[in-house]
Amino acid sequence: MANEEQSAGAVRPQTMHFDTPLAFRSGTVLDAYDLMYETYGTLNAARSNAVLVCHALNASHHVAGYYADDPDNIGWWDNMVGPGKPLDTDRYFVIGVNNVGGCFGSTGPASINTKTGLAYGSSFPVVTVEDWVKAQARLATRLGIERFAAVMGGSLGAMQALQWSIAYPDRVGAVMAVAAAPKLSAQNIAFNEVARRAITTDPDFHGGDFYGHGVKPKRGLRLARMIGHITYLSDDAMMEKFGRALRNGTIGYHFDVDFEVESYLRYQGDKFAEYFDANTYLLITRALDYFDPAEAAGGDLSKAMSKVKSRFLVASFTSDWRFSPSRSREIVKALVDNRLPVTYAEIDAPHGHDAFLLDDSRYLALVRAWYDDLYASL
Amino acid sequence: MANEEQSAGAVRPQTMHFDTPLAFRSGTVLDAYDLMYETYGTLNAARSNAVLVCHALNASHHVAGYYADDPDNIGWWDNMVGPGKPLDTDRYFVIGVNNVGGCFGSTGPASINTKTGLAYGSSFPVVTVEDWVKAQARLATRLGIERFAAVMGGSLGAMQALQWSIAYPDRVGAVMAVAAAPKLSAQNIAFNEVARRAITTDPDFHGGDFYGHGVKPKRGLRLARMIGHITYLSDDAMMEKFGRALRNGTIGYHFDVDFEVESYLRYQGDKFAEYFDANTYLLITRALDYFDPAEAAGGDLSKAMSKVKSRFLVASFTSDWRFSPSRSREIVKALVDNRLPVTYAEIDAPHGHDAFLLDDSRYLALVRAWYDDLYASL
Repeated sequence: MANEEQSAGAVRPQTMHFDTPLAFRSGTVLDAYDLMYETYGTLNAARSNAVLVCHALNASHHVAGYYADDPDNIGWWDNMVGPGKPLDTDRYFVIGVNNVGGCFGSTGPASINTKTGLAYGSSFPVVTVEDWVKAQARLATRLGIERFAAVMGGSLGAMQALQWSIAYPDRVGAVMAVAAAPKLSAQNIAFNEVARRAITTDPDFHGGDFYGHGVKPKRGLRLARMIGHITYLSDDAMMEKFGRALRNGTIGYHFDVDFEVESYLRYQGDKFAEYFDANTYLLITRALDYFDPAEAAGGDLSKAMSKVKSRFLVASFTSDWRFSPSRSREIVKALVDNRLPVTYAEIDAPHGHDAFLLDDSRYLALVRAWYDDLYASL
Repeated sequence: MANEEQSAGAVRPQTMHFDTPLAFRSGTVLDAYDLMYETYGTLNAARSNAVLVCHALNASHHVAGYYADDPDNIGWWDNMVGPGKPLDTDRYFVIGVNNVGGCFGSTGPASINTKTGLAYGSSFPVVTVEDWVKAQARLATRLGIERFAAVMGGSLGAMQALQWSIAYPDRVGAVMAVAAAPKLSAQNIAFNEVARRAITTDPDFHGGDFYGHGVKPKRGLRLARMIGHITYLSDDAMMEKFGRALRNGTIGYHFDVDFEVESYLRYQGDKFAEYFDANTYLLITRALDYFDPAEAAGGDLSKAMSKVKSRFLVASFTSDWRFSPSRSREIVKALVDNRLPVTYAEIDAPHGHDAFLLDDSRYLALVRAWYDDLYASL
């Protein structure tokens, strides 16, 4: 039996400064940068029990636990990570990191460029999944972790985990990739493009250099988030959650909020526009668009993964139409082609793409069993 | 064998003026209004061969043929309507009409309100499917058509055809409803809401009264159209059409056009913003949101359709995720419950919602057969 589940407790974000230049795939170089990270659990003497959690679009280094001075600020994967939880921090040493280009403390477009004394804004390098993984690898080295027991993530986080297995085959024992795709489809890119256009055509965007104008392109960010939310949920889940319920019981014959689903989307959009950085949104969606590890192998994912050594857990959700199960099966096929050990689960869950963050007992039990098994092999 | 297919030829739009006030479902009254319409074929002596074509979101009265002074301006359903075509204008007298609230000549938000001398703008009544059908019925009466052989449409046009059968059971012999739904889902409403927010938060919208400011909320209209286009196409169709093809063969590391799909969406958005009216977009999406004939019958569509007398052709497309086949089957169930004659076809087509406008030979053959059969019964 698993131990009783507990919170990772009061946690403290930390900053790691790097003054070794980071060369991006684009050719641009960042001379120095900071990464924000958090850790949960204890690194064992053999340094063999570390797990890296990669975040998706709007999340951060704050994976689990809470802050002593802000107890409601609970980590985004708190149901997954903690003492006795599926990824058990009584056994594993878990690291969450905010990626470079982010807006939660790591160096990003809103950070001050010491050379100019101004925010990077539009001059911040276009970052790729490969660049993030490279920066994460440096952080691991600085933390004394030569090899991760596992690298894990959902959605864009899963892409980073996949890239880890390709770029650093000797540094990743296992990969957990949930709600994943090996590359975006044209439809995925199309939704990103609309979100980006909403931001870049907002008059408050100022070509990305809005910081000095005392404004934020909130109109664009709100729309971007609203579009995102629709794609994170399934049609059925939205129907179940909101249906055609009216806010005031009756049709108002106007273009303001009539339906509950409109109210929900506006609320989510407004909230997001308050805390998220518009340039980070552009960077992250572009990183999603550009990720395509098979491309260099002529589109052959199996060939692209021929040097991978990790075992895998791949899980998808039936109602996820953003990254449908067939996208996960592309990864599974490449693993099988390379005779790599892979556990694949297609979970019949109604919640859409967001299911990877939710409390589905079959999903959490699967992850628990996989990490139990992995632990026995360390 | 069918006759050789021909164009409906050079056609001429006409205007019908109404000075009987039109009371909208919202309670607002329009004292006088114009409807633009076109006709193809000849009304027979018995006045029994008339077919009304209802348009969807961005279309108009210009259903078939072309204009003598603008030969490239071909009707939006020209593959369906004309001499020898599936809806054969050698047999049927076909009417296309631009709905009230539209922006192609019928009285709409951009029209001048004679009481103020200014464009209606934000004061234009919020229009519903029921209102459109009422206005169409008046037009029919003025044209001497007491009873339509058929009323037809795809998507929002299908909703109007459905409403015809409910509101005027004695005036509709048959209904053809393609790519239909009896009401929007929460996800459908959500996409409309994002499109509307893009328009209403565009600083050039001026609360709907932008006409006097010499501007148009083009940024918002572009985004609205881009979102629309994504939902009209299937994921597979987009992948087939664009894939991940790059405009310049290589990644540009910027937020401008890199992928072909981005270029396509921008082009469609730009084009749309030039010719479409922002207030009409709001009105039409709201009409979609509000349509729910079953609501008054406690959510029971069968009950709502208990007085319907028409025969039906219902057709859906397997890859249509905007109005999936299951939405059409809701209509079919209500028809079967009421012992009404219905032909239902679920067409295995890859093109998504837009399939109803395309040249799928099985689809067009089905429509042809159904209209042949209907003609024999006139």
